[in-house]
Amino acid sequence: MRVSFMSHFRTQRYFRCCVYALGASAFFVGSRWALADTGIVGLINKPFSVSCASVPFVTKFPEINLKNWMCLPVSSVDQLQLSDECYRSKMEVLCMELQGRLCKEIEKIDRKAKFKVDKWERRAGGGGISCVLENGDVFEKAGVNISVISGNLSGQAVKEMRARHNEIDPNKECKFFACGISSVIHPLNPYVPTTHFNFRYFEVDLGNNRKCWWYGGGADLTPYYLFNEDAKHFHEQLKLACDQHDELFYPRFKKWCDNYFYLTHRGETRGIGGIFFDDLEDTSQEKVFSFVKSCAEAIIPAYLPIVEKRRHLKYTNKEREWQLVRRGRYVEFNLIYDRGTKFGLATPEARIESILMSLPRYAQWNYCYDSSQDPRNQSLIEVLKNPKEWV
Amino acid sequence: MRVSFMSHFRTQRYFRCCVYALGASAFFVGSRWALADTGIVGLINKPFSVSCASVPFVTKFPEINLKNWMCLPVSSVDQLQLSDECYRSKMEVLCMELQGRLCKEIEKIDRKAKFKVDKWERRAGGGGISCVLENGDVFEKAGVNISVISGNLSGQAVKEMRARHNEIDPNKECKFFACGISSVIHPLNPYVPTTHFNFRYFEVDLGNNRKCWWYGGGADLTPYYLFNEDAKHFHEQLKLACDQHDELFYPRFKKWCDNYFYLTHRGETRGIGGIFFDDLEDTSQEKVFSFVKSCAEAIIPAYLPIVEKRRHLKYTNKEREWQLVRRGRYVEFNLIYDRGTKFGLATPEARIESILMSLPRYAQWNYCYDSSQDPRNQSLIEVLKNPKEWV
Repeated sequence: MRVSFMSHFRTQRYFRCCVYALGASAFFVGSRWALADTGIVGLINKPFSVSCASVPFVTKFPEINLKNWMCLPVSSVDQLQLSDECYRSKMEVLCMELQGRLCKEIEKIDRKAKFKVDKWERRAGGGGISCVLENGDVFEKAGVNISVISGNLSGQAVKEMRARHNEIDPNKECKFFACGISSVIHPLNPYVPTTHFNFRYFEVDLGNNRKCWWYGGGADLTPYYLFNEDAKHFHEQLKLACDQHDELFYPRFKKWCDNYFYLTHRGETRGIGGIFFDDLEDTSQEKVFSFVKSCAEAIIPAYLPIVEKRRHLKYTNKEREWQLVRRGRYVEFNLIYDRGTKFGLATPEARIESILMSLPRYAQWNYCYDSSQDPRNQSLIEVLKNPKEWV
Repeated sequence: MRVSFMSHFRTQRYFRCCVYALGASAFFVGSRWALADTGIVGLINKPFSVSCASVPFVTKFPEINLKNWMCLPVSSVDQLQLSDECYRSKMEVLCMELQGRLCKEIEKIDRKAKFKVDKWERRAGGGGISCVLENGDVFEKAGVNISVISGNLSGQAVKEMRARHNEIDPNKECKFFACGISSVIHPLNPYVPTTHFNFRYFEVDLGNNRKCWWYGGGADLTPYYLFNEDAKHFHEQLKLACDQHDELFYPRFKKWCDNYFYLTHRGETRGIGGIFFDDLEDTSQEKVFSFVKSCAEAIIPAYLPIVEKRRHLKYTNKEREWQLVRRGRYVEFNLIYDRGTKFGLATPEARIESILMSLPRYAQWNYCYDSSQDPRNQSLIEVLKNPKEWV
């Protein structure tokens, strides 16, 4: 598999600019969790090593089964059933599966709140499905959004892409297709970390039956109180997904993640990282798709056992305050640095509510907040300032 | 007075980039309010027209009187006493006066909370005084910050400035001086608007006893519930300040303000505007300084009577929620669009806490918040989408 390791800042920009400039609002991929039938509730209070060990790592997505999804897909079901030959459809099915599975698992854990399902259309082609749950007993705000868009690349977008994909002719419009899933989950309890992931596929028609394509994505964890075993578990699951395809992937994508989710003005990372990659391409598309699928399939077993393990811990107003202060940092990252958000917001006709779904329900800014009052705050800041190898 | 009306986006950028790249964190100017002695408490519940009429518009700042200030100034008092000949000193005195006056008036209104006074030094030259009050009975968060910095302009900063000030040689370092005051005041009661103002002076040494200089600044109001008479009063006070110097100023700077404080992705302004200007220069520095001083002197009579008038209105959780949702928009503006904040955050050694003092203590983001539930929300949004002539 050939992975382009040019500056991730530039490659990020090329991808996102093009996608967002064309109206996609938020990007994201599908996964399924093996414990769906037995439920994750059974994991509560069991030793962590046991609960993790009991999560089979890779579970193939089933054939199309509409009842697993949150609503009808953006593309027609007939078209998606061609997925064995068509990577656009395979990616859309992956997104639909992960969205459906994750939303249902979240509702099962929360018990109180339900996802609001907003299906939207894009005038220039395609559309999306935004699923957002708010004010739950466990989840304060959880969004799992899909975009499936297509159309023509503008001259500017083509120009932005050319430095990477110089097979694209800057003098003519190119047809493009982009499909992705993106999710941010903010639990209520300060002991339960926030998580974010997104996976996306991009395809550009070069004319004369030629095309270029690439994948991008990643997942990261943002705890408010650091539990080393949770950080280790999250990274272990992602490493397993990577190692199946190339043992060089995890260390590279872990570092990329630490570099990307970095607040320069604070001198700290957004959270304890995970993996992040872009511009994945290869002579075999099946190889790359299969890697992205493994990552997507790792999301639920990487995150939900941590939710189950920490959701019942008692907390005070002081701990809630620290969480809101840290959520302020999350807002800072998303509005100041995140290229997807920035390009999304700058895009005419973008669906703002889907893009800003990533922001927490509440955030707080105190002048010169004294984080030294709790040594646990310092432990967290220490790993944010000096990213750690968790596995 | 010659005012450069090239694209304000560019001129903003030139100024701010240079100032912030050199480590100033927040910029701001001084003013004094005539009713200081009688107190503004007497204005409560009186008809607005009377209270406004009773505020003499311009009040000269007194000679230096250290007890009016929040602490000792950044420059030595001896140096500031040369202020009749030196515009650097005159500006610093203006800033100190307004900071002192405003902070004391705010404490008088609040009764409970006191300003925390943080004096800081900049390694490369100068420093600042950040005054922040939090968790008051009337004010949730109020910051009034001064910066007085000097040093050498980097090659990059010079390059950024040249398009305007082409008398500056890009091939050599220039000495610069920047002094400003910046303030954001977030009251607790949703019926009391947030206000922001900043005034700043910039000077570049061109060598051979030549220099160039300019002023910038502005003030704007962000209500959560719209009272036409408050908006009118605020604009009237600023217009009076402008009209004393040039009747073309208010309409120009009012429009500039509406254009600058605009959230493109929301299609609305941050608030109901005010005035905003940059790159003010003239053959007579006294003229420009005098205009900036008038604007600075208008701040307290423009804003505090509104605080007094609305602070006792009863409000519910629903109204508080709407305020926090709108404060989310304030955060969006400051982190996504405000050039001062952006350059400040990107500056090595910047004082982050002073820059982000402008963020509200609490903000909220709800997915697809239903603002139509209260017709008053719609009235506000209407004027944010279609800026109005208030006077």
